[in-house]
Amino acid sequence: MPAAAAHPIDRRARTAGLEPNDTLMPIITLLTDYGLRDHYVGELKGVILSIAPQAQIVDISHDIEPFHVAQAAFVLHRVWSRFPAGTVHLVVVDPGVGSDRRIILGQYAGRFVVAPDNGLVTWVHRENEAEAMFVVEDRRYFLPQISSTFHGRDILAPVAAHLVNGVQPRAFGRTADRLEMLPMPHRGAAVDGGWLGSVIYVDRYGTIVTNIRVEQLRTSRGEVRSWDVLINGISIGPIRSAFGDVATGSALAIIGGSGFLEVAVNQGNAAQRFAPLESIRVEVR
Amino acid sequence: MPAAAAHPIDRRARTAGLEPNDTLMPIITLLTDYGLRDHYVGELKGVILSIAPQAQIVDISHDIEPFHVAQAAFVLHRVWSRFPAGTVHLVVVDPGVGSDRRIILGQYAGRFVVAPDNGLVTWVHRENEAEAMFVVEDRRYFLPQISSTFHGRDILAPVAAHLVNGVQPRAFGRTADRLEMLPMPHRGAAVDGGWLGSVIYVDRYGTIVTNIRVEQLRTSRGEVRSWDVLINGISIGPIRSAFGDVATGSALAIIGGSGFLEVAVNQGNAAQRFAPLESIRVEVR
Amino acid sequence: MPAAAAHPIDRRARTAGLEPNDTLMPIITLLTDYGLRDHYVGELKGVILSIAPQAQIVDISHDIEPFHVAQAAFVLHRVWSRFPAGTVHLVVVDPGVGSDRRIILGQYAGRFVVAPDNGLVTWVHRENEAEAMFVVEDRRYFLPQISSTFHGRDILAPVAAHLVNGVQPRAFGRTADRLEMLPMPHRGAAVDGGWLGSVIYVDRYGTIVTNIRVEQLRTSRGEVRSWDVLINGISIGPIRSAFGDVATGSALAIIGGSGFLEVAVNQGNAAQRFAPLESIRVEVR
Repeated sequence: MPAAAAHPIDRRARTAGLEPNDTLMPIITLLTDYGLRDHYVGELKGVILSIAPQAQIVDISHDIEPFHVAQAAFVLHRVWSRFPAGTVHLVVVDPGVGSDRRIILGQYAGRFVVAPDNGLVTWVHRENEAEAMFVVEDRRYFLPQISSTFHGRDILAPVAAHLVNGVQPRAFGRTADRLEMLPMPHRGAAVDGGWLGSVIYVDRYGTIVTNIRVEQLRTSRGEVRSWDVLINGISIGPIRSAFGDVATGSALAIIGGSGFLEVAVNQGNAAQRFAPLESIRVEVR
Repeated sequence: MPAAAAHPIDRRARTAGLEPNDTLMPIITLLTDYGLRDHYVGELKGVILSIAPQAQIVDISHDIEPFHVAQAAFVLHRVWSRFPAGTVHLVVVDPGVGSDRRIILGQYAGRFVVAPDNGLVTWVHRENEAEAMFVVEDRRYFLPQISSTFHGRDILAPVAAHLVNGVQPRAFGRTADRLEMLPMPHRGAAVDGGWLGSVIYVDRYGTIVTNIRVEQLRTSRGEVRSWDVLINGISIGPIRSAFGDVATGSALAIIGGSGFLEVAVNQGNAAQRFAPLESIRVEVR
Repeated sequence: MPAAAAHPIDRRARTAGLEPNDTLMPIITLLTDYGLRDHYVGELKGVILSIAPQAQIVDISHDIEPFHVAQAAFVLHRVWSRFPAGTVHLVVVDPGVGSDRRIILGQYAGRFVVAPDNGLVTWVHRENEAEAMFVVEDRRYFLPQISSTFHGRDILAPVAAHLVNGVQPRAFGRTADRLEMLPMPHRGAAVDGGWLGSVIYVDRYGTIVTNIRVEQLRTSRGEVRSWDVLINGISIGPIRSAFGDVATGSALAIIGGSGFLEVAVNQGNAAQRFAPLESIRVEVR
């Protein structure tokens, strides 16, 4: 993350007569499985801007596979800390809408996450200490009418908007004493002096992200050892430092931007090459 | 809709020296069938921001099926009133571009719609009284050169931008005395003491929206009666209040966020289950 | 492009106490092949807003086909000049990431392009004189840690953000003395008193854009001649002025919004009609 020392908003805010620690346009990001064709995203945005017209809405993704909580959890983990402190991340992948699943408001390193309590914060929560965690339950901050199928619009969006309007996090409800977490192995499993990984994400390029972490690959002196990486039992050589280290169309292993071991094909699609996904087996030895 | 009494823009606007009833960033929403891959959306946005750089552009959807006016009409109907008064909704699904179809500027409850006159306002107009309706024809507010294939960029976008710049709606042209409307049944048809619905929309989850309205399902005392819902002749039980009221993978009927009867499959896809769409028959008895 | 004489930002900026030639929200547009499902776009946006929170981020497209530099080059060409002077266009289609390919910062008509030097500016550069062209190499403007697979986030996004923060273009590196260009014929080839075109783009409607330019179709007196257009050897008649000039479902030739000859099907899909794309042959005689 870039240093915020010379944060240009300060200069501009002062020029415009606002307080230095006031942001001109507080950010609300959206991460949903609503898709981009329907009216759902538009309804969210309209509700937010009706309550907090100064909010800057930033689309992260609306193309999470329907109901795929694990996919959204990984995307959230990758993006949340890139945004400035004060940002509110609104995450709605909500197969349990209308049931008694809770809605939570968490605070991590000065950023906020508003989401159903169904595991969406799994990766963020495992790797960061929550500064605060509340159950969202004060109906004064919801829309007056709550549907049973669209809490994103009726509860989560207005809560995010009131939050950037300056409502204190603790005003939304009591402290949460537990959190739902996805049953996803936090890291690769030890096997035969190496590690066996699980697939935790596949991106649009077909790159396969495993749960083998760079920390697992380091020697006691902190360097990444010279490992042999196998996919479905076949070696694809050592961990590379760039896609271009192998020929176009060849598979390679690389440490991705999150610190997880990834398998890719240079200018190709690894997930298709090694399909079906369920049987992919990535090992380092 | 949330009350706008404590509209935070007012405080901020005053702080920054603007008039309280001036909006810092007037909103223009975009709803098109341009898709997200090509240059069309970018051209629209560039034209808008060149004329009205203070505009806040909000994407509703660009993935309306090409030329599918009815789909966009339904999405517009779902989102328009969620945005604050003063918002301009720019809607471009325009199979008749280059013909003599007109472009209209309508005002409903303080929001504006700029669109080709081809039925895009069908649902909005049937359920709301237009406060004003003009034919857009004053070329001073168009781009200097008008192509025959891209009026979204050359006419509709600049008109929307000039509108948020403060040009009065009546300045764009004469009052419209008629409107094109889609030949879509406004509500379910009476059959055998019940109602027979038409499919008016299918969302990305495969939820089937019918034109049977909640008002048609109420008793004289205002309560939703205990109906039996049939799809393609097979009962899926009464109207439910949440997806989770049936088992995962089971079909259910529910009143959607617009007040229309919908058929869904809990965590599944009803449109695929009951395909082909053209032959779907939803009845309540 | 609309005249900027009465640029409303000036009035507003003055009202708010900023300098007239200061923009309240400088624009950064994004054009990538990152797709809309993954975390890549969100990471870009977070990095930009952390460095330049006053930036207005505008999505052009993230659905460029993976690694398809030519597609992005055409989209950039269509949109870049529509935006106000000062806009920064951030373009990331980067199959050579991690190799020694350079990153460039170009200035055309007061707009900026930040992109890998792999041909992305081909169309813009051929048709406009660059006011400046630099190699981006000063690491002070990069993120502290540079991955080998995601220079969009680590280099290009922070450079774009620093640029809208007021860093001078020449501060980012030395003047570029050469540019990679796509080996794409600039214009249709002369054959038999007419022109043979290459397909340079296909849009979501299936419209086929060729490299035959309107200038090639004009007589010495500046008018577009009455040509016969053939696709795969079959005549589709003269150049039309609107889609509606032929029956629904019929093919037609038209001059597109960029001044290239295009082949479309009225309310249909020309690319599907005349597939496969590789063998499409468009001639005018």
